[in-house]
Amino acid sequence: MLEIKFISLLWLIGIIAEAMTGALSAGKKQMDLFGVVIIGCTTAIGGGTLRDILLGNYPLIWIENVHYLIAIALASLLTVLIAPLMRYLSKLFLAIDALGLAVFSIIGAQKTLMLGFSPVVAVVMGLVTGVFGGVIRDILCNQVPLIFKKELYALVSLLTAGLYIGLKSCEIAEWINLTVCLSFGFSFRMLAIIFQWGIPKFNYQYGQDGLSR
Amino acid sequence: MLEIKFISLLWLIGIIAEAMTGALSAGKKQMDLFGVVIIGCTTAIGGGTLRDILLGNYPLIWIENVHYLIAIALASLLTVLIAPLMRYLSKLFLAIDALGLAVFSIIGAQKTLMLGFSPVVAVVMGLVTGVFGGVIRDILCNQVPLIFKKELYALVSLLTAGLYIGLKSCEIAEWINLTVCLSFGFSFRMLAIIFQWGIPKFNYQYGQDGLSR
Amino acid sequence: MLEIKFISLLWLIGIIAEAMTGALSAGKKQMDLFGVVIIGCTTAIGGGTLRDILLGNYPLIWIENVHYLIAIALASLLTVLIAPLMRYLSKLFLAIDALGLAVFSIIGAQKTLMLGFSPVVAVVMGLVTGVFGGVIRDILCNQVPLIFKKELYALVSLLTAGLYIGLKSCEIAEWINLTVCLSFGFSFRMLAIIFQWGIPKFNYQYGQDGLSR
Repeated sequence: MLEIKFISLLWLIGIIAEAMTGALSAGKKQMDLFGVVIIGCTTAIGGGTLRDILLGNYPLIWIENVHYLIAIALASLLTVLIAPLMRYLSKLFLAIDALGLAVFSIIGAQKTLMLGFSPVVAVVMGLVTGVFGGVIRDILCNQVPLIFKKELYALVSLLTAGLYIGLKSCEIAEWINLTVCLSFGFSFRMLAIIFQWGIPKFNYQYGQDGLSR
Repeated sequence: MLEIKFISLLWLIGIIAEAMTGALSAGKKQMDLFGVVIIGCTTAIGGGTLRDILLGNYPLIWIENVHYLIAIALASLLTVLIAPLMRYLSKLFLAIDALGLAVFSIIGAQKTLMLGFSPVVAVVMGLVTGVFGGVIRDILCNQVPLIFKKELYALVSLLTAGLYIGLKSCEIAEWINLTVCLSFGFSFRMLAIIFQWGIPKFNYQYGQDGLSR
Repeated sequence: MLEIKFISLLWLIGIIAEAMTGALSAGKKQMDLFGVVIIGCTTAIGGGTLRDILLGNYPLIWIENVHYLIAIALASLLTVLIAPLMRYLSKLFLAIDALGLAVFSIIGAQKTLMLGFSPVVAVVMGLVTGVFGGVIRDILCNQVPLIFKKELYALVSLLTAGLYIGLKSCEIAEWINLTVCLSFGFSFRMLAIIFQWGIPKFNYQYGQDGLSR
């Protein structure tokens, strides 16, 4: 049971970190406080919500436990208050976000497997849970989703989810699996930021051919 | 039964007003008539559809009653015809849209409660029904959702839905509740337009920190 | 059974063509290879996924048969490799895309009817299946959906789906119906490209009235 409490705590940290990235994005578009709260909430719960809709898994977590939504809304508003401190907190914040990415990817894969879906679907849903909150945030803020352009992010999510499913199939104790995958996902993302690791870009400007309509 | 007919009529007015805002947005992006119809339809039914998908409430209203969809499509096309008159009708139009906002918020909360969800979920779903049609419209038209930036809109929706749920829990007669909430939501929105009420904006331009990725 | 195999083959061709349009769009936004794969996949399966979510039809096809998703991901990556050849393949590519549009519209209508929905819903869902993959692609690439602006595309989808449902109600043999509708949809789209057929645009720039909010 201890590992459940531990991962729940990490999930809460992850959700709040996601809400804060959403709130900051909203601030860059000079939205009002209500917009900040809505973007914060959709960023934090968007990935998990999309996963559950794709799987047809009802009721949604935040509908069953509405206090999560309230916590996220408050975290979004808190972000506005502490925004002036962000220059001092930025490294802490990036670390929390990296932790959140790893947690979301693992939880997404875990839940999908527990619902009886195949391991491949579980890995895909780990990715959906990990990154689509940020994709929805960027769509609402009217910008090209940054996870498709910047340092490794989606790949970290995919590999973390894949590692979790792989170790699970080896029947390794859950708490060891969680520790390994969290450490892997977190370190991989942090290293990607520090060394600006990225994967090759596809630059197709041929254009006036009417093809990529 | 009279109040059901009354609110159904208002709902129809609201849906048509929403379709018209969608059609006008499409016109600003110089879409073709088919784009106008699709944007009109998604604006009008988007909020309710998102609510029902989030709640897992099937079949969707416009799939069960496809003639609603046809009415909305016709309203969108009609908008194109009367667009030149808009300068004379703009105040009427804003009033209809305000009425639609109030009706959608109340109906969204009412339906959610009737499905057995908690009062807080009902208020959230009132908000989703009231404002997400417009959010989807702005996403399809590739602009930052304006409800996050302009005068009070989402807050009107939230408070109207909250008032309805609050009065409902006091076991006030449904028709009194409807009358009070409609008047409140409509007047609040109109006053917000007239006096340009807004809530504070969050302007975060710190930027090059790589945070609000 | 032969016609099922035939339409399955066409569906596979269509899905791969859609993945390629997605990959090329991602390349125009200089996304990384992971972004290319995600945009390719959402473009290819987005329309069918949206249809099934709107109908509440679970499990989704690509969750039940995850190898489709893998085929689409590979097609997206392949697109990056053959991109330099696109100038020679552009006509072939437009033809495959036109075929895909017709196939998707027919399959979307067919599946909806088989689930017991009304003919009108089936036609609408044919349209959703045919064009919303491209709409989701354009949203993810942060541009106004081009099907709302360029030559006939959505109308081809709607009429093809409508023709299929119409002929079906006349109890015409399925393989004749498929042949007629595929030929119709494919030729209609190709002619629209060649002769630049479009439907009138709605240009509403009245603007500073605060109406089309």
